[in-house]
Amino acid sequence: MKVLAFDIFGTVVDWHGSIAREMAQLHPQVDGDAFALAWRAGYKPAMARVMSGELGWTLIDDLHRMILDTILPQFGLAHLGEEERRHLNKVWHRLDPWPDSVEGLTRLKKKFTITTLSNGNIGLLTNMAKRAGLPWDCVLSAEVFRAYKPDPATYLGVAKVFDLKPEEVMLVAAHHDDLAGARKCGLKTAYVERPLESGAKNPKDVSPRPENDYHCASLVAVAEALGC
Amino acid sequence: MKVLAFDIFGTVVDWHGSIAREMAQLHPQVDGDAFALAWRAGYKPAMARVMSGELGWTLIDDLHRMILDTILPQFGLAHLGEEERRHLNKVWHRLDPWPDSVEGLTRLKKKFTITTLSNGNIGLLTNMAKRAGLPWDCVLSAEVFRAYKPDPATYLGVAKVFDLKPEEVMLVAAHHDDLAGARKCGLKTAYVERPLESGAKNPKDVSPRPENDYHCASLVAVAEALGC
Repeated sequence: MKVLAFDIFGTVVDWHGSIAREMAQLHPQVDGDAFALAWRAGYKPAMARVMSGELGWTLIDDLHRMILDTILPQFGLAHLGEEERRHLNKVWHRLDPWPDSVEGLTRLKKKFTITTLSNGNIGLLTNMAKRAGLPWDCVLSAEVFRAYKPDPATYLGVAKVFDLKPEEVMLVAAHHDDLAGARKCGLKTAYVERPLESGAKNPKDVSPRPENDYHCASLVAVAEALGC
Repeated sequence: MKVLAFDIFGTVVDWHGSIAREMAQLHPQVDGDAFALAWRAGYKPAMARVMSGELGWTLIDDLHRMILDTILPQFGLAHLGEEERRHLNKVWHRLDPWPDSVEGLTRLKKKFTITTLSNGNIGLLTNMAKRAGLPWDCVLSAEVFRAYKPDPATYLGVAKVFDLKPEEVMLVAAHHDDLAGARKCGLKTAYVERPLESGAKNPKDVSPRPENDYHCASLVAVAEALGC
């Protein structure tokens, strides 16, 4: 194994908590928990519109904005102006890492090449990394492959970028559908438990599934499992 | 100015010296200076064949290999086998930085987002950075934009990736044609003197040209000029 590719939203950074915290500051009258969930809920349907051909190729920043414009009225924020919308939309660039992420990645980086493999666009991922101190060797994104996960072009694209066999690459993610897509392409897989990804009110089942090569409670645990 | 994009071959790393040194180790009977120059000389014509449509989109690793296969017989190395050719071709992943590069980039990174903007492919640039300690925030390449410099799609592509105006991006390079391409697109430009890029026997004129925003003797000098 030479390269570790990481899912980002939910796996390395805490989108729910970060958005809820920012909403509590900017718009304390809004239910930040429900707002974060509504925004994220629009994500897969929006990507599906692109992948079906209904929309042309679209960066996640632009999909996030389309969804934001849709949900603002539902939360009493229809009055927000262009500048406020632009700023709020970039909260996805300002997501905080889980407490173990920086240490885990820093340790893994000593032994492996570590890259993002996210549907987030390159600018978003780079801004996020700079703010959060995520020490990527490389920033790979759906934007590079012009396909969103779980399209095989993304997983196989990582192997191709590094001139490796699929089994020399491992996807690290907190989502079974993402890991299943990688496994079908021959990549190794590590599941990371993020039970509170969708907030304390919506804990998710993080019990192990035998199809993954590794099952870890954190990115530090991934580093320990891989001898880093 | 928010983002600094760096040319790599010749600007950040010493392709001539690195290849000559590796040849001196692997094949001491060969004139390493002439070999490095011959390999590099094939680079622009090979890219021109892609940009004219004669060849489909091709990674620089593959162009380097085509050129290598052409020049090996000229240097008495026609007998090299597949494994030796593959290894030698990856010398472009093992280029050494100029002595000022790591310090200059590390200082610049504190104030700016620093990215590669090279015709080299992503895997090459990532492997090089990991070996040489180049602390990129992001690895952008012709591979992302499916066009080689000086195609405007590459320079404007950097601004687009970061959702910036062209003048908020600066190209740092040791080559005037590259800087001219960037300037035409509205980017700022910094010329870096690398008088021995093509070896001690082929010093190049590095006198200042007024069209560049900055003229610096090294990447440390770029950092100083930008107050880092």
